[in-house]
Amino acid sequence: MRLVFLGTGAGVPSKQRNVSAIALEMLQELGSIWLFDCGEATQHQILHTNIRPGKIEKIFITHLHGDHIYGLPGFLSSRSFQGGVSPLTIYGPKGIKEFIETSLRVSGSNLSYPLIFEEVFEGLIEDNDRYQVVAKKLDHGVTSFGYQLIEKDKPGQLQPERLIKAGIKPGPIFQKIKENNTVILDNGDVLLRDNYIGPNKPGRKITILGDTKYIPEHSHFVNNSDVLVHEATFAGDSEELAQRYHHSTTIQAAILARDSSVGRLILTHISSRYQKEQQDELLFEARSIFNNTDVAYDLFEIDIPAKE
Amino acid sequence: MRLVFLGTGAGVPSKQRNVSAIALEMLQELGSIWLFDCGEATQHQILHTNIRPGKIEKIFITHLHGDHIYGLPGFLSSRSFQGGVSPLTIYGPKGIKEFIETSLRVSGSNLSYPLIFEEVFEGLIEDNDRYQVVAKKLDHGVTSFGYQLIEKDKPGQLQPERLIKAGIKPGPIFQKIKENNTVILDNGDVLLRDNYIGPNKPGRKITILGDTKYIPEHSHFVNNSDVLVHEATFAGDSEELAQRYHHSTTIQAAILARDSSVGRLILTHISSRYQKEQQDELLFEARSIFNNTDVAYDLFEIDIPAKE
Repeated sequence: MRLVFLGTGAGVPSKQRNVSAIALEMLQELGSIWLFDCGEATQHQILHTNIRPGKIEKIFITHLHGDHIYGLPGFLSSRSFQGGVSPLTIYGPKGIKEFIETSLRVSGSNLSYPLIFEEVFEGLIEDNDRYQVVAKKLDHGVTSFGYQLIEKDKPGQLQPERLIKAGIKPGPIFQKIKENNTVILDNGDVLLRDNYIGPNKPGRKITILGDTKYIPEHSHFVNNSDVLVHEATFAGDSEELAQRYHHSTTIQAAILARDSSVGRLILTHISSRYQKEQQDELLFEARSIFNNTDVAYDLFEIDIPAKE
Repeated sequence: MRLVFLGTGAGVPSKQRNVSAIALEMLQELGSIWLFDCGEATQHQILHTNIRPGKIEKIFITHLHGDHIYGLPGFLSSRSFQGGVSPLTIYGPKGIKEFIETSLRVSGSNLSYPLIFEEVFEGLIEDNDRYQVVAKKLDHGVTSFGYQLIEKDKPGQLQPERLIKAGIKPGPIFQKIKENNTVILDNGDVLLRDNYIGPNKPGRKITILGDTKYIPEHSHFVNNSDVLVHEATFAGDSEELAQRYHHSTTIQAAILARDSSVGRLILTHISSRYQKEQQDELLFEARSIFNNTDVAYDLFEIDIPAKE
């Protein structure tokens, strides 16, 4: 898995940071890519990556502010223009469907692929044998969600040395044991796979919050995430501004990460008031609270390796 | 006057060319800037110019295809975010109002300035003592307009040598003569200004066409333009493609310019199929028909000097 930060600014684009969008590449895991928010010119940012728009099959919209959604009509049209055929599902608060459908209708755009809308409510929004997606309401003045991907645990690897010890010779039987809970050998013996595999491989937990005030109780949702992506519109000394505009500071995001046993914190949605030279300070103050923090920049990428 | 080409590509953005938008700066003439079309990321392109969004007071939309309008919600919101207060009028085909109003409403955007919509029909759409704006229906499968700015002629300059010859001494009287059709001198003589000024300064005529097929009859509209901005989605050898997709070729645009006594032709809306090395060919083939041609690129600017 890989996170690609396509736009890391707040409110309006600047030369340095575009408005919000994050791609979660899961090409090995699911053969597809998910997008979280799609601010204006997200498709332009994608031109500077290896991301193929046709591979994006889910878009999660955290909230409806323009800097998080105005790139959708263009992205959807271009995905079609480039011959995309696989269905695309857009998850988001009520209103996203009207915005997209009006934009496409007025501009006479016909998509080459099925477009599905899922209105999001707090709670479990997807659950299959590989992962769950959970949505959590945040505190941003308008309905704003955090999304969490919970990868399910995978069975451990076959331990050939144990099988050999039990007198079973390497061969196609190994594969059979790997794929079945129980296997009856030619001699009638019954083998239980659990005795010959290592411990479960725990799945990853990735949490991407939309714009929000700092609320200590978000810790219950965020808890134990391997990666937490949190907005940090303001520097640590601007708590009042953050409060007034329903946003968070670097320090507040770092406190939440520290108090939630998070593995790694990535700050994004940085106000354009902070010039390049001030951005080191944003990082330092967050790290003073939670060391494993990074401040994202446009096209910043992180790998999220599978756990052993 | 100055034209700034903000986006010169067709259909979808590429690394080289953004989708359509052209600014017509008239800071000296009117203290304001007009925009023609506003594809996605037009506000991003503006960041690389001296254009202040608050100075843009009219936006003319040629047609509703996404690559010409998807930048509007973001541009309008950012103009507000930056404290714009002067009214902004959007001219365009029916549908533009619904697109903008839905986008702003769904995203909870309140603008800091009055936004006015003018649905465009063919003919004279503005007429005052300084200029006229005329709209002309083109041929693009959907309603697509060309817009023409006709600057009104200005009275010529005072010819002091003629006044001196007539025995009038330089002084405040010169200014009085300049500002009035007739002036009665102290000795009772009546002076007619027309006898003491040079010929009228002819106004400029600038024509910016939206997407269109080549139609020879467009010559009546385009006739005598000082500058004609014409789409050239395709190269000269792709007339069939141009016909099928309701677009024009370089050669067709050049023929129209040649047959319409145009001063200068600027080609834009260039398909991304033409790589950098092929773009010289686009220019050469157009110039073989009409020599005073340029192919626009993103952030290309031309001055349109006042005529003597």
